[in-house]
Amino acid sequence: MEITAAQLAAMVQGEVVGNPEAKINNFAKIEEGREGCLSFLANQKYTHYIYSTQSSVVLVRKDFVPEEAVSATLVKVDDPYATIATLLNFVNAQIPAKQGRENPCYITDGALVPDSCYVGAFAYVGANARVGEHTQIYPQVYIGDDVVIGDNVIIYSGVKIYRGCCIGNNCIIHSGAVIGADGFGFAPVNGEYEKIAQIGNVVLEDNVEVGANTTIDRATMGSTIIRRGVKLDNLIQVAHNVEIGENTVMAAQVGVAGSTKIGKHNMVGGQVGFAGHIHIGDNCNFGAQSGVPNSVGDGKTLLGTPAIDSREFAKMFIYSKNLAALNKQVAELKKKLEENK
Amino acid sequence: MEITAAQLAAMVQGEVVGNPEAKINNFAKIEEGREGCLSFLANQKYTHYIYSTQSSVVLVRKDFVPEEAVSATLVKVDDPYATIATLLNFVNAQIPAKQGRENPCYITDGALVPDSCYVGAFAYVGANARVGEHTQIYPQVYIGDDVVIGDNVIIYSGVKIYRGCCIGNNCIIHSGAVIGADGFGFAPVNGEYEKIAQIGNVVLEDNVEVGANTTIDRATMGSTIIRRGVKLDNLIQVAHNVEIGENTVMAAQVGVAGSTKIGKHNMVGGQVGFAGHIHIGDNCNFGAQSGVPNSVGDGKTLLGTPAIDSREFAKMFIYSKNLAALNKQVAELKKKLEENK
Amino acid sequence: MEITAAQLAAMVQGEVVGNPEAKINNFAKIEEGREGCLSFLANQKYTHYIYSTQSSVVLVRKDFVPEEAVSATLVKVDDPYATIATLLNFVNAQIPAKQGRENPCYITDGALVPDSCYVGAFAYVGANARVGEHTQIYPQVYIGDDVVIGDNVIIYSGVKIYRGCCIGNNCIIHSGAVIGADGFGFAPVNGEYEKIAQIGNVVLEDNVEVGANTTIDRATMGSTIIRRGVKLDNLIQVAHNVEIGENTVMAAQVGVAGSTKIGKHNMVGGQVGFAGHIHIGDNCNFGAQSGVPNSVGDGKTLLGTPAIDSREFAKMFIYSKNLAALNKQVAELKKKLEENK
Repeated sequence: MEITAAQLAAMVQGEVVGNPEAKINNFAKIEEGREGCLSFLANQKYTHYIYSTQSSVVLVRKDFVPEEAVSATLVKVDDPYATIATLLNFVNAQIPAKQGRENPCYITDGALVPDSCYVGAFAYVGANARVGEHTQIYPQVYIGDDVVIGDNVIIYSGVKIYRGCCIGNNCIIHSGAVIGADGFGFAPVNGEYEKIAQIGNVVLEDNVEVGANTTIDRATMGSTIIRRGVKLDNLIQVAHNVEIGENTVMAAQVGVAGSTKIGKHNMVGGQVGFAGHIHIGDNCNFGAQSGVPNSVGDGKTLLGTPAIDSREFAKMFIYSKNLAALNKQVAELKKKLEENK
Repeated sequence: MEITAAQLAAMVQGEVVGNPEAKINNFAKIEEGREGCLSFLANQKYTHYIYSTQSSVVLVRKDFVPEEAVSATLVKVDDPYATIATLLNFVNAQIPAKQGRENPCYITDGALVPDSCYVGAFAYVGANARVGEHTQIYPQVYIGDDVVIGDNVIIYSGVKIYRGCCIGNNCIIHSGAVIGADGFGFAPVNGEYEKIAQIGNVVLEDNVEVGANTTIDRATMGSTIIRRGVKLDNLIQVAHNVEIGENTVMAAQVGVAGSTKIGKHNMVGGQVGFAGHIHIGDNCNFGAQSGVPNSVGDGKTLLGTPAIDSREFAKMFIYSKNLAALNKQVAELKKKLEENK
Repeated sequence: MEITAAQLAAMVQGEVVGNPEAKINNFAKIEEGREGCLSFLANQKYTHYIYSTQSSVVLVRKDFVPEEAVSATLVKVDDPYATIATLLNFVNAQIPAKQGRENPCYITDGALVPDSCYVGAFAYVGANARVGEHTQIYPQVYIGDDVVIGDNVIIYSGVKIYRGCCIGNNCIIHSGAVIGADGFGFAPVNGEYEKIAQIGNVVLEDNVEVGANTTIDRATMGSTIIRRGVKLDNLIQVAHNVEIGENTVMAAQVGVAGSTKIGKHNMVGGQVGFAGHIHIGDNCNFGAQSGVPNSVGDGKTLLGTPAIDSREFAKMFIYSKNLAALNKQVAELKKKLEENK
């Protein structure tokens, strides 16, 4: 598919600055631009690339005024990021959804999988499992007994969902994610550890996305709950009886220990760790690699291990780096004081 | 299954305080209690919930005396946590173990898998592999050539065990765990890295539990060894030639670098990292996110990166947070000293 | 296979010190030596083991002179590590490569898989996928539509490669690795997150090794690129549009956030995190658990979170540990100054 800058501008209610006949047939990041590609400029940090990009057309903000010559044709729009997202989603939608059943797959008698679902080869659906309409179950997926899955869910190859877990509508679960493995619960008995049965489950509400190789453990009793709209990146650990509130997003490799409750609209950086049995409020922001040992109220921006206010962390770090100078000052004061005697 | 508080008390040698006819048919955490549920109170932190829980019955310690009105019926026992564990295990045992062979599965000629084992669909058992009695091999498991597996082992869907590894009796291995992938061994040759063959294996002794998506690499030569009773949570990395001693437990996302030897009865918090080629003693406790660069003796409680005594870490952190004040003090002293001249 | 120390010395151009008839039939680490085993001594830290090892033969450097009695026979060579690597690779090469097709496997019409390839049972190859010669596709591997794979690649059981990704020649991908899952891209819209389609792919150049359960996300547009000779350990996260330069090696559990570009010949310790949208130079060394928030030039050795020069980190840590003493000094100065008044 090839279109001109003018055609693009018409599609996105934009204004062409430059050659309206410039042709595009692909997308590229502005810093990796090539002829025939459409790029976008949304992050200020990347502005300097617009003067050197090889892309044929670049989406920019309406108020963007170049400070040097730009060889690319510009298409000015209200929100370049939203526009590119719309275009990417449009292109992606051209890939036909998987359909039908590939053989062999294994659907246990009594499981309910509507004909509108895709079931890939070597996928497994356990006894009494119920799957909604238009759900895509890729090859080698495992769906345990009594699992309930909503409509329009995409479950990529190799996902494992243990018995009794519930997946809402429009969820996307990436390869290697494990939903509902046993929580890590043991009772110490004479220096050994006896396993405590984990008879709860995992509940994913609607519109949740779970990254590749992320693990969400089943509750000891009750449910581990991932609320509507939560987005989890790859390799995240969510322990038993955790609850993550609506529209909270977590970057890769975060760990949440058992029974911790996290509120809504939080943003959690990569490799952050939350202790068990704590409560986190809403609208907080946790910097990458933070360690959160205690409960946190609403609207905090925290950083470090143990996590503190991010500005306080920045100050503490600067003072720490200057400790050699402070020690020297103290030594000099001491010397002077002795001389003064 | 529904029982009364009185029937429960009889089962667990407990004493009823409240309505002996209160009915329970499920379990719930005390803070998530609902009518018809049994909860327990073991952790002091949760005591305040007993005055508001909706659960019908709560297991409490014999010496528990409420300070306010409690609407739930109490059943007093010696150890509520042990009692609830016993009850959970009892309920869990009602779920019938998987049995028989689902087709298609792939058992290579010469592999030994007794009829008492469950073999799920799309499971693979390699040449000369030997599996013990009553072991459950869930769908899509891969067991490489020459692997030896004990009795009563549970291997959940999608576990991968590379050639030549040994799994003891009564082990539980959760989905996505990879046992015996190559250790990370390369020799630098002219600025590139040449692979060093990893011809050793992994040995799991009896009663080991391995969490979802945890990886345990095969030894370069000899064995990576996980001793009896070790419990590993999810997403843990155990490198080649590591040894982990009896009844050590590790929370999620811990990493242990190559050739490190860890003793018995250690407790390791989430996201801790151990350097390679070090020795860790017995009965140590490592706080979450610690980084352990050097060998450690017995009985230490460490925290931080690099990990130090946890009380020393706490002091260091408080002093660090107060550095602004200390700098101010030093500046004032300097000023006064100059005024005194 | 059993050989004598003399035969070994002839194979590796070494010199025997001790019993030339000493027999070896296996390898062992020097500290785990047993009769009949060959060990090696390359790391000084392990020198003391040579006086107690039970191994029958030990490879040592030409210039090694024991300071006490050694019961093992020594074979002196230029580079014991390179020699043992050669021997391990020789032994490993005796294991025959997997061949042929096991049934059932699923090769979509139009996919190209030469007869020289191994295709394990329950492996899946999508539409229009093209696989090179002598590539080994282990059981339960998933290769999506339009994937291109080179020659002599080893893809272990359970690897998942999403549509459109490209794998170079001689790559090795370990079990559970996920190549090409969606990058973590969402646009905030009215307090919720809308998914941004990730229409790019992942490109692995030649000679790349990817560890177990490592995840490499597809680009939003363009490619996430892993350059020639890169070695990634287990459980690593590589986000969308990242590029990792030639011969960079990363230990387990490292995370690289989106759009970050990492240069050549870097060494990255375990559990390190890189922020998104930064540039890392060549020949850097990042200590374990470092957090790298900003771009870094060539040849740096960094440590800590935020990562700073490793010597500066060491000093800062020592000064921090001594803060109690510094506070005491300041208090004393204050007191003295008041007395002097």
